Amino acid sequence: MITFIEGFNKGLLDSITETINNNKFNLIPFESIKFLSPIPYPRRNVFCLGKNYIDHANEIQSIPGGGNSIPKNPIYFSKVAYPCMGTEDIILNHIEITNEMDYEVELAIIIGKKGKNIPQENARDYIFGYTIGNDISVRNIQLKHIQWFKGKSLDSCCSIGPYIVTDEEISFPPNLDIKCIINGEIRQNSNTSKLIFDIPTILHDLSQGMTLYPGDIILTGTPSGVGFGFNPPKTLNSGDIIECEIEGIGTLINYLE
Amino acid sequence: MITFIEGFNKGLLDSITETINNNKFNLIPFESIKFLSPIPYPRRNVFCLGKNYIDHANEIQSIPGGGNSIPKNPIYFSKVAYPCMGTEDIILNHIEITNEMDYEVELAIIIGKKGKNIPQENARDYIFGYTIGNDISVRNIQLKHIQWFKGKSLDSCCSIGPYIVTDEEISFPPNLDIKCIINGEIRQNSNTSKLIFDIPTILHDLSQGMTLYPGDIILTGTPSGVGFGFNPPKTLNSGDIIECEIEGIGTLINYLE
Repeated sequence: MITFIEGFNKGLLDSITETINNNKFNLIPFESIKFLSPIPYPRRNVFCLGKNYIDHANEIQSIPGGGNSIPKNPIYFSKVAYPCMGTEDIILNHIEITNEMDYEVELAIIIGKKGKNIPQENARDYIFGYTIGNDISVRNIQLKHIQWFKGKSLDSCCSIGPYIVTDEEISFPPNLDIKCIINGEIRQNSNTSKLIFDIPTILHDLSQGMTLYPGDIILTGTPSGVGFGFNPPKTLNSGDIIECEIEGIGTLINYLE
Repeated sequence: MITFIEGFNKGLLDSITETINNNKFNLIPFESIKFLSPIPYPRRNVFCLGKNYIDHANEIQSIPGGGNSIPKNPIYFSKVAYPCMGTEDIILNHIEITNEMDYEVELAIIIGKKGKNIPQENARDYIFGYTIGNDISVRNIQLKHIQWFKGKSLDSCCSIGPYIVTDEEISFPPNLDIKCIINGEIRQNSNTSKLIFDIPTILHDLSQGMTLYPGDIILTGTPSGVGFGFNPPKTLNSGDIIECEIEGIGTLINYLE
């Protein structure tokens, strides 16, 4: 997929679309496709933003390592995703070390073109497409180690999918309803237009002095309604069904072991 | 190199040693070898420990995102290293966004065997070898974004080398003098036996719930004497020569652009 992204251009998209429309293949019905993780082994850790919706920044003020309430500058951390899970995959429950696993639905940007010091006004040129990310977070580990990295990086705790929707299909900047549903109960319900730092700002700021590469995954932050935001917390339990939905992209489903 | 590490065993080492001792090749004189980065493209970001020497934890109390002075648990973060520089390579000065570049000499562990929940008593079995790391840190960016990730991840800001010394060559746990010398002035001068969290503890704790892979690089933390620990700070200037030395390994030399 990374090689495909590197070689992707409008002409290639048109010829794929034409081939499908001409129905030169026996197409498999959409419903019977098992979608694998779009990028199972990203070349670097997944880039993430913390506290990038105001209502979420307010609900998790108690988590150390994030400064005071509303960030003045983007907060970046990284997440090991090796492999990066896909839709319908099982997330390990890590029961030996936690009972505080949490969900975080996020709009994921997939970088399409190598770039450094990206100008805000050209940010869109660097985007291959979008998918949904679930930034599964293990809160006791996140708190224990102060910096968030380890609590964000346990095996199987990054999931993206169900597939990547190319930039052409999504208005810019994306103005999409975003939801997370646990066992049928809507917990997170917002819109990607409410990002504190929007996508042009993120690509410009993150790429200052640091080159982004095709296939890089950037999770843009989660809205309010994470399990740790409730009192008492509504963290995940074994067997839970986690549905992350973004309008125009689809639904990323994962099951907690 | 990652493939070599995966396939490495004592028999292979013996046969390499025998071949060299029998001098079946025209060996190039050691002094005329240009050593490249041992692992230019690690498969995940470099794993790092923060504040893992008491004297360093005390000197940087003012850096937010690290809790209070001496950590009770290891503090982990990650560092983009794409590529990971080697000895005699130039480090970019990022003059457009900083005049606060800092050095941090560290003992680097190179993982040799896939492992999760590694028992402390078997930690050594998972180590391929050691090298020297320079965790170049851009302090104003590190402070600006609260989580340390971005300030640790600018292009060319991770350097390791000059080469990897296999585990067999180093006593365990390593008890090695460690120094950083800027333009001939010794700034950091300590011993790897002074780690707050020692290597068995790091491998055990870091691998709880998170699999380590051959070729993974773990920087074990830096002793006191970083530029930001001086008043006024002694951060780096263009043209500086940075020598990171560890007894029994060698000297990693880098030049600031």
